[in-house]
Amino acid sequence: MQKRSPAPPGIDGAALHHYALRVNRIPVGVLGASGYAGRELCALIHGHPCLELAFATANDQRGATVRLGGRDTTFVAPDDAALGSAELVFSALPHGASYESVGRARDAGARVVDLSADLRPGNEHAGSAPYGLTELNRGQIVGADLVANPGCYATSILLALAPLVERDLIAPGSAVVTDAASGVSGAGNAPKRELLFGEVSEDYRAYGTGNVHRHLKEMRATVAELGADVDLVFTPHLLPVARGILASITVTLARPIDGDVLGPWRDAYAAEPFIELAKEPPALRDVVRRNVTRIHVEPLAGTRRPMLLVLSAIDNLLKGAAGQAVQNANLMLSLPETLGLPA
Amino acid sequence: MQKRSPAPPGIDGAALHHYALRVNRIPVGVLGASGYAGRELCALIHGHPCLELAFATANDQRGATVRLGGRDTTFVAPDDAALGSAELVFSALPHGASYESVGRARDAGARVVDLSADLRPGNEHAGSAPYGLTELNRGQIVGADLVANPGCYATSILLALAPLVERDLIAPGSAVVTDAASGVSGAGNAPKRELLFGEVSEDYRAYGTGNVHRHLKEMRATVAELGADVDLVFTPHLLPVARGILASITVTLARPIDGDVLGPWRDAYAAEPFIELAKEPPALRDVVRRNVTRIHVEPLAGTRRPMLLVLSAIDNLLKGAAGQAVQNANLMLSLPETLGLPA
Amino acid sequence: MQKRSPAPPGIDGAALHHYALRVNRIPVGVLGASGYAGRELCALIHGHPCLELAFATANDQRGATVRLGGRDTTFVAPDDAALGSAELVFSALPHGASYESVGRARDAGARVVDLSADLRPGNEHAGSAPYGLTELNRGQIVGADLVANPGCYATSILLALAPLVERDLIAPGSAVVTDAASGVSGAGNAPKRELLFGEVSEDYRAYGTGNVHRHLKEMRATVAELGADVDLVFTPHLLPVARGILASITVTLARPIDGDVLGPWRDAYAAEPFIELAKEPPALRDVVRRNVTRIHVEPLAGTRRPMLLVLSAIDNLLKGAAGQAVQNANLMLSLPETLGLPA
Amino acid sequence: MQKRSPAPPGIDGAALHHYALRVNRIPVGVLGASGYAGRELCALIHGHPCLELAFATANDQRGATVRLGGRDTTFVAPDDAALGSAELVFSALPHGASYESVGRARDAGARVVDLSADLRPGNEHAGSAPYGLTELNRGQIVGADLVANPGCYATSILLALAPLVERDLIAPGSAVVTDAASGVSGAGNAPKRELLFGEVSEDYRAYGTGNVHRHLKEMRATVAELGADVDLVFTPHLLPVARGILASITVTLARPIDGDVLGPWRDAYAAEPFIELAKEPPALRDVVRRNVTRIHVEPLAGTRRPMLLVLSAIDNLLKGAAGQAVQNANLMLSLPETLGLPA
Repeated sequence: MQKRSPAPPGIDGAALHHYALRVNRIPVGVLGASGYAGRELCALIHGHPCLELAFATANDQRGATVRLGGRDTTFVAPDDAALGSAELVFSALPHGASYESVGRARDAGARVVDLSADLRPGNEHAGSAPYGLTELNRGQIVGADLVANPGCYATSILLALAPLVERDLIAPGSAVVTDAASGVSGAGNAPKRELLFGEVSEDYRAYGTGNVHRHLKEMRATVAELGADVDLVFTPHLLPVARGILASITVTLARPIDGDVLGPWRDAYAAEPFIELAKEPPALRDVVRRNVTRIHVEPLAGTRRPMLLVLSAIDNLLKGAAGQAVQNANLMLSLPETLGLPA
Repeated sequence: MQKRSPAPPGIDGAALHHYALRVNRIPVGVLGASGYAGRELCALIHGHPCLELAFATANDQRGATVRLGGRDTTFVAPDDAALGSAELVFSALPHGASYESVGRARDAGARVVDLSADLRPGNEHAGSAPYGLTELNRGQIVGADLVANPGCYATSILLALAPLVERDLIAPGSAVVTDAASGVSGAGNAPKRELLFGEVSEDYRAYGTGNVHRHLKEMRATVAELGADVDLVFTPHLLPVARGILASITVTLARPIDGDVLGPWRDAYAAEPFIELAKEPPALRDVVRRNVTRIHVEPLAGTRRPMLLVLSAIDNLLKGAAGQAVQNANLMLSLPETLGLPA
Repeated sequence: MQKRSPAPPGIDGAALHHYALRVNRIPVGVLGASGYAGRELCALIHGHPCLELAFATANDQRGATVRLGGRDTTFVAPDDAALGSAELVFSALPHGASYESVGRARDAGARVVDLSADLRPGNEHAGSAPYGLTELNRGQIVGADLVANPGCYATSILLALAPLVERDLIAPGSAVVTDAASGVSGAGNAPKRELLFGEVSEDYRAYGTGNVHRHLKEMRATVAELGADVDLVFTPHLLPVARGILASITVTLARPIDGDVLGPWRDAYAAEPFIELAKEPPALRDVVRRNVTRIHVEPLAGTRRPMLLVLSAIDNLLKGAAGQAVQNANLMLSLPETLGLPA
Repeated sequence: MQKRSPAPPGIDGAALHHYALRVNRIPVGVLGASGYAGRELCALIHGHPCLELAFATANDQRGATVRLGGRDTTFVAPDDAALGSAELVFSALPHGASYESVGRARDAGARVVDLSADLRPGNEHAGSAPYGLTELNRGQIVGADLVANPGCYATSILLALAPLVERDLIAPGSAVVTDAASGVSGAGNAPKRELLFGEVSEDYRAYGTGNVHRHLKEMRATVAELGADVDLVFTPHLLPVARGILASITVTLARPIDGDVLGPWRDAYAAEPFIELAKEPPALRDVVRRNVTRIHVEPLAGTRRPMLLVLSAIDNLLKGAAGQAVQNANLMLSLPETLGLPA
């Protein structure tokens, strides 16, 4: 991961006006648009001042017209999408299936943001594209043709950990223990019995236990690249809410943090438009429907070594998927980074 | 904590019949009956074959009649309860306020199960009464006059950890990291804005952060008494469900567990009627409305030292409060331990 | 519908004891056991003092073992069920598919409670079996070999209306307008996208609109048989809760009810163990997990003709399905009507 | 109610630009800003291109700073609000308490939108101000100094009924039966036990039964003024959702509607930006967070007289309160009606 490029300048009213009046919007397409992330992408594109939706593909739901972002949107069959008509394509296809479609879109001349795991660090095709964790990797994303959009859990956890790692503040060899909980939209909208309202309501459980969740790969690769020598332990849980992720991260420090415990995060994220440092533990309702990561840090009392609790909340469909994808697309297309994104 | 007494024999049909036909039920009272735990106590008592409710007190709700366990139950003012009319009194009064009332009930000749924190290990009046974590402390509870009923989080966590601690399986000096999530009934039914449906629905957040939650005291004292030299880290969260607790505990082992990773729990809890060892991660719906602790254990992959994930689920109002209180009362009154409890 | 037979005598302790000690339990089977109603049936049978589960069939979930009523229950393929081994069979198969299986079970010598619509009044095979709306039709159900168990909405609405109809209190030719709302378990547990937690949570909508819901047939036929000449209007809605039905019924009266507005219901249901007349509007939480119908009645102010609001709440899986089925089975098998049912 | 003025022209990009660049925003104040409607008002004002928040008052929560519409907003004590500093004041004070404060704001020279019931048709101070049911009363609202903003239930029901009433399509003397269900935000955010998550979750019940709900007054007065001679029957219910209202209205027609059953609504609302006519029954999730009324109509099968089901869904906090208040304020201030409102 390169040295970080600075946070973007804010957009003033005049700039917004400039962009909003662009005569020709940029055509973009969405592959796999019928899932929750794909739908969110369509909604964001409809509301974006400089983008327009060229096509949205779906398999099972091909032909269906749904209301997204205030506009009727019709899903076309994958073969009916004119890949070349889009300047940029978002792929929200399943892991594995995405790689080939990304190749076809690139061959047709489109830039691509791939929301699948295929190209992410630690995965099969890692290295083919910069990792789109925007705040850590902005320099490589600006102007890129292909970006690997991060996983939702990975986004919430890596943005929370990076300031500690970059400052060598985590005790070498220690375990970083993360329990995280996600709303059901993280599991997609394919009909499965265990995701029925009658099963999820009034329930809560861990899943993907034993430190084997798919996102661990990209988290481990990224943490290692940032220079930390730690064991990541990650236990995800399923929440009876529609959207939102909260990661609760317990860290053993190499040394106490003097002064303001939030200092490392303030230093790292001072000018970031989509990162909020909170005085109180973040709640899902603080971040839902917003493209932000909200972080809170507290020392843990009564332990022999200095330890920290780092809490990080995102909307899994925005900063954890479609929102960050648009954030990356803005950079790839040389648009202001915050354009069309709810902060 | 003494050496454990054996698990109780099961009740066969003949025994149940014997107890169910007892001519005279044992009168018991409930102090602080209008809260969620108090109401659950009344419902359990109404359904218990050998107990009958002598009185149920409430302050703000004095005079109210509510339907509990299929029977209309009228709350009387605290001063109107004839403490001496009850052979045993449950105190579900708030921490601090309970201590004095417990004393008055004892002076009136009643045995007492105190559901408040006042008498628990690590708290102000610790040592006055055995700690009512039934499965760990049965020997001291049988026939006791006064028992300190454990906290809900403490119950779920200590029952999960005890088999490891007793076998010296936790790495000395290591941190045991527990993230736990509780339904809102854990916060009581006093009207507070932050507990309104409009605030809790679709939300999730940590609270009592920084390793300062009240239950840490009794957990630390108990773990120390059991012989472990570890740092307990505990972060509770508020779930948008009515009832249930799930504790997700990450442990660093002193040495790997050979063979069946559930072995220590099987050894410790073989004959326990209220402990379930599960092959899959427990869900709240597995335990809600039941007086059980459901435990699942998995090794954590990819860490340099051997680590375990221990998951423990209970109904916070039953095994975490009223159910365990009746379990203890059964022992104090020389009744079969499982009588009147939904398993 | 015949003149009503009287409500059953209560069961005293001695009778319960008598039945509980029956040496041989009666074997019963469940066809279509994997749906919500089928699972509830298995749970009730496991907890019933005189019944035992001979088999439970399922198609897609054949071979699965699930925990129901505190016991592991394994679903067998329909062809593997020895129909003749059961004295009574509950069919919780889908409408249409049930009829043939009911015939096979009858041929094998079993009595049958059919929970499908096939045999209900107004449906294709109406007339083959008494309608199992227990409180209205007890005389025909006692000792019957085959009973058509009512629909959930029909149960809540017909029990609420019958006392008015029987007393000719509804204005002839008027419209009886029912809006009802059901928890999602009413829609079954087959995986459908529109029943996912992410779709149902925080939502509410009408469905089956235009006065075409399947249950209208049995309601119209039953109301006509009871002697009323009215138009039934019925609009069902889907609630974001797991279980429970509330029917809100607006009735135009032929003449005002003098005195106690609840009088007709008190007269009709004085001794009924599973009908509750409430002073306040019933809530789902008053009836969930109980085999009762809870009814509340109020005059409507400010209308030129006398009108009433009748509110009726049930648990759709108990009094609306499995509970009433067991209630009927008890009568068919000459057991006390309330045996094994939570009131 | 006057003859209706035409629906407003749409805002094109140029007009939006014109308004967005207004150098001076119009200062507006909010009285009673800490409730759900008041908070929503503050959020809308913060996002409005031509308004700015001059003050937001609260009693119990005075001094509190909350995040609304992406901005920190501090509530001041009522006496600390400089009423004269606002060109327009929204009063979200409780019924009864609002009237006096509205007077003081008017005396200070501010225009006022009163969200309380005090000035609405059928209430104590009716006649002092036009009724702000925008689509029915636009002519009187444009340029008005004082407007009585409608109740949430009344908005959903009256907009659904008006096209029938105006065309004399409802059978004279018949009963119009409305069952409606509202999310809990309709009950405000004052802490009450019956609104706790633990009480509302998995529940559903009617309240304000017997045809006595406060909103009936304004509905009756408005329907009468529109020329209908009918009995309104209204039964509200409390839903376990945060926001949204669905009204299910059963109407007896004077004569069948020939051709398209939606015809009367198409005629009445052809150009309305905030009214949607839907082919399917509207769901809460179609309207939540939007300032729209979504209406669906179906003939009811099998009745002797022609009857209709009219379904109407709104967000109770937007079109049912704060959104319609801003819609009215836009007209009062000669701004485009749709400015700052999510459609």
